[in-house]
Amino acid sequence: MAEYHIFVVSDGTGETATKMSKAALLQFKPANTTFVRHSNVRSVDMVREIVRAAEREPALVIHTFASRRLRQEMEQACQELNVASLDLIGPLIEKLAEFIETQPAETPGLLHQVDDDYFDRIDALAFTVRHDDNRSPEDLHEADIILVGVSRTSKTPLGIYLGQEGWKVANIPVVMGEELPRELFQVDQSRIVGLMTTPERLAEVRKARLSRLGSLDSTYADMKRVAAELEYCRKIFEQNADWLLVDVAGKSVEETAAEILDRLFGKERRL
Amino acid sequence: MAEYHIFVVSDGTGETATKMSKAALLQFKPANTTFVRHSNVRSVDMVREIVRAAEREPALVIHTFASRRLRQEMEQACQELNVASLDLIGPLIEKLAEFIETQPAETPGLLHQVDDDYFDRIDALAFTVRHDDNRSPEDLHEADIILVGVSRTSKTPLGIYLGQEGWKVANIPVVMGEELPRELFQVDQSRIVGLMTTPERLAEVRKARLSRLGSLDSTYADMKRVAAELEYCRKIFEQNADWLLVDVAGKSVEETAAEILDRLFGKERRL
Repeated sequence: MAEYHIFVVSDGTGETATKMSKAALLQFKPANTTFVRHSNVRSVDMVREIVRAAEREPALVIHTFASRRLRQEMEQACQELNVASLDLIGPLIEKLAEFIETQPAETPGLLHQVDDDYFDRIDALAFTVRHDDNRSPEDLHEADIILVGVSRTSKTPLGIYLGQEGWKVANIPVVMGEELPRELFQVDQSRIVGLMTTPERLAEVRKARLSRLGSLDSTYADMKRVAAELEYCRKIFEQNADWLLVDVAGKSVEETAAEILDRLFGKERRL
Repeated sequence: MAEYHIFVVSDGTGETATKMSKAALLQFKPANTTFVRHSNVRSVDMVREIVRAAEREPALVIHTFASRRLRQEMEQACQELNVASLDLIGPLIEKLAEFIETQPAETPGLLHQVDDDYFDRIDALAFTVRHDDNRSPEDLHEADIILVGVSRTSKTPLGIYLGQEGWKVANIPVVMGEELPRELFQVDQSRIVGLMTTPERLAEVRKARLSRLGSLDSTYADMKRVAAELEYCRKIFEQNADWLLVDVAGKSVEETAAEILDRLFGKERRL
């Protein structure tokens, strides 16, 4: 069976291009695909060496260069050695240049420049990790977003995802018979998000969880127990009408995060 | 001053396209750019409505549709109303189809499909959050990667970044005069990564940290103290020659993560 090699080549980390290529590849589900990532490629010699390596495999070269010269060099080398290639960033940069009527800086790896914005994002992420699972409720008022929900409604991954985007997130689990921390009711209630799902979906997610853990404990994923927990949670949400309710059933973390941000802060947000 | 609107339109979340566009935009540093993201766009009517909204602004439409029909519809609508546009995913999907000799599935939002791989990634992330800052050292043997370093060598953001990629990461802080947990020396030593930086860089990062916190405490960022801490840490690393040493000075989290994975598991990793 053929082995497909996809070379992702960049003068930065090549991270965005890898994500994009993985996303596109999901439309095909090929069995034997290997990604090879070449980061920090910043000379013509390096470009030529990579194309020679690609020529020895059934390989496709997907590249993103901030430098127009390396971009052109790559396209030319691939053409000469008859290697399939795609310039993933060139058309976008050229379109932006036209739209904004400015010439691009051609600085490699600008995405990950260490600047204030970058430090802010790291701080937000650290805040989120510190406030996972009702840790440190004493500075809950500093959170931009507070997620509330029963076990396995994606509170942790949602928080981390939003934390990486620069939002300070805390999450508070709802456990039957346990009081929510009093600090929760002393902060701006419009920043609180109640996560809801269906009993069917929650039982399914918990079953998957248990089977991966190799556990035989069945109460956790039991339909009756799951329904009772959600009912208990729903009552709490009803008593707190100011909270934003979000249904996570069947949605990915990214989809739920986008919905939360749209509804809390509007669709048109300055970056 | 002109206000530029960039519309990101997708039949999925549009997340990857947004990241890519932000990355490209960094080459320009325009002052007034607003992103508007339209997710889950799945009908011709929605496409036409968005293009009409874009027509009223100075707007550029960047779109990613798994559906070939919506992709073509978008291009046509933009041409008719004279709106600048770019198909970000079409060329990539067509190039992959040619390379792999398979037709694409055209399923929207496939990237975030809820499958086993997705659950594995969420589990890895939860593990990483649970094992931040030497929490739960008792199951350190389950970690794929263990990060060791002094305060502000990016242990937490590195862990989270790798956790989202599906790696179970634990991190252990090095604090002068405090013993490292004995469990650390009982696990596979080839999975341990020692993070090193320069005193100058560490003092700088800590200063930035303090100023953002509005703190006046200066010992934390003091050059002498920082140099002594790094020297203390270096001795520990010397005593543990099996650990992989990685220099984080001046590198972004993504760059350091790529280096760690390349050196621990090789450049050519199956996804």
